[in-house]
Amino acid sequence: MRVRKRKGVAEFLAAHSDKVITAPADWTVVFGNQKPLQIEVGCGKGDFILGMAAKYPEVNFVGIDLQETVISWALDKLLEAPLPNVRFLLTNGAALTAYFAAHSVSQMYLNFSDPWPKTRHAKRRLTADSFLAIYKELLSVDGALTFKTDNQGLFEWSLSNMSQYGMTLDSVSLDLHRNPELMENNVETEYERKFSRKGQPIFRLAARFEAGDVRA
Amino acid sequence: MRVRKRKGVAEFLAAHSDKVITAPADWTVVFGNQKPLQIEVGCGKGDFILGMAAKYPEVNFVGIDLQETVISWALDKLLEAPLPNVRFLLTNGAALTAYFAAHSVSQMYLNFSDPWPKTRHAKRRLTADSFLAIYKELLSVDGALTFKTDNQGLFEWSLSNMSQYGMTLDSVSLDLHRNPELMENNVETEYERKFSRKGQPIFRLAARFEAGDVRA
Repeated sequence: MRVRKRKGVAEFLAAHSDKVITAPADWTVVFGNQKPLQIEVGCGKGDFILGMAAKYPEVNFVGIDLQETVISWALDKLLEAPLPNVRFLLTNGAALTAYFAAHSVSQMYLNFSDPWPKTRHAKRRLTADSFLAIYKELLSVDGALTFKTDNQGLFEWSLSNMSQYGMTLDSVSLDLHRNPELMENNVETEYERKFSRKGQPIFRLAARFEAGDVRA
Repeated sequence: MRVRKRKGVAEFLAAHSDKVITAPADWTVVFGNQKPLQIEVGCGKGDFILGMAAKYPEVNFVGIDLQETVISWALDKLLEAPLPNVRFLLTNGAALTAYFAAHSVSQMYLNFSDPWPKTRHAKRRLTADSFLAIYKELLSVDGALTFKTDNQGLFEWSLSNMSQYGMTLDSVSLDLHRNPELMENNVETEYERKFSRKGQPIFRLAARFEAGDVRA
């Protein structure tokens, strides 16, 4: 998402440095507790991570985005309806290992990531090898990565790329909004609401790095 | 596919025992050469395997089905337009190891297999574990399994089941007929023609049993 810079955004974020983290920190200190940690890489305007935080008060959530203005819109919403268990982190996906200890994240979410459709940009996709290597380091051994998108090409590529990286698919849905079992716990993003209302299918996968049978 | 038994079918097949194999045999003797072997499990009326045999004369093809009448329709077509590099095998998928030596098959195809949509019938799906174990034994180390279907539920389930079995996805397409690269070499089945003309997407995956990166 390319956005025009919001006026005074740096000062606005700095004034809420308790909610928008910009430097490596101890998350148990930031949240003041030891609850499990879940993160969204590319949180956009924050609807998903705020919805998750409201739904699961027993979990700490960190929404990550690299654009100050985008994070500021998410912050607007958090200030309007405060929640103790959510923070935003201003950084890019490639730098995440500086912010999270190895295997300290229990679940990860990628939602409607930039598809980067041109082959020469494939390395920028958030499901490319260099990012998967980072997620593997961050996620706990039994932690899953959940990925939602409306983009067929990105989804096809991600399925085979994750498989070739050695990840195991827990579940795949090619039309999330017609899957009652998955919809029961689904929290929508802004994009998802827009696309699903147009009747476009939403693709979803859950995968993990540990090999072997997860059905037992 | 449930079909009404064709009258005199056993006699018809017996009269063409050079083309319809019913007992374990040495395929290099059957074909009279050592060309690579590719098989289709559930060949139906034979359009796919006959199309492949016409397109790839340097390969031997075996179309497998468990119903005499279905095989007889495929045989009708072969008799009408003879090809030296195709045979039919009358047996069911669970018995394949009696007919093919370990790792003697270079490529395998599953096309529009019965979806068996009820959970209690999941073990009957041709992508269930007991069948995957057989395919793993038959396929050569670098051999791939290609699977096409119009059935979304079966495709979703097969993606995660194959992954959990330890297979690696080479490629995934959620709309084969709009993928020019894959369509270049696509041979249609009877079902595929019917469904794609109705505008329904055809799903396709290619996967292999060896672990690791196949992109190198």
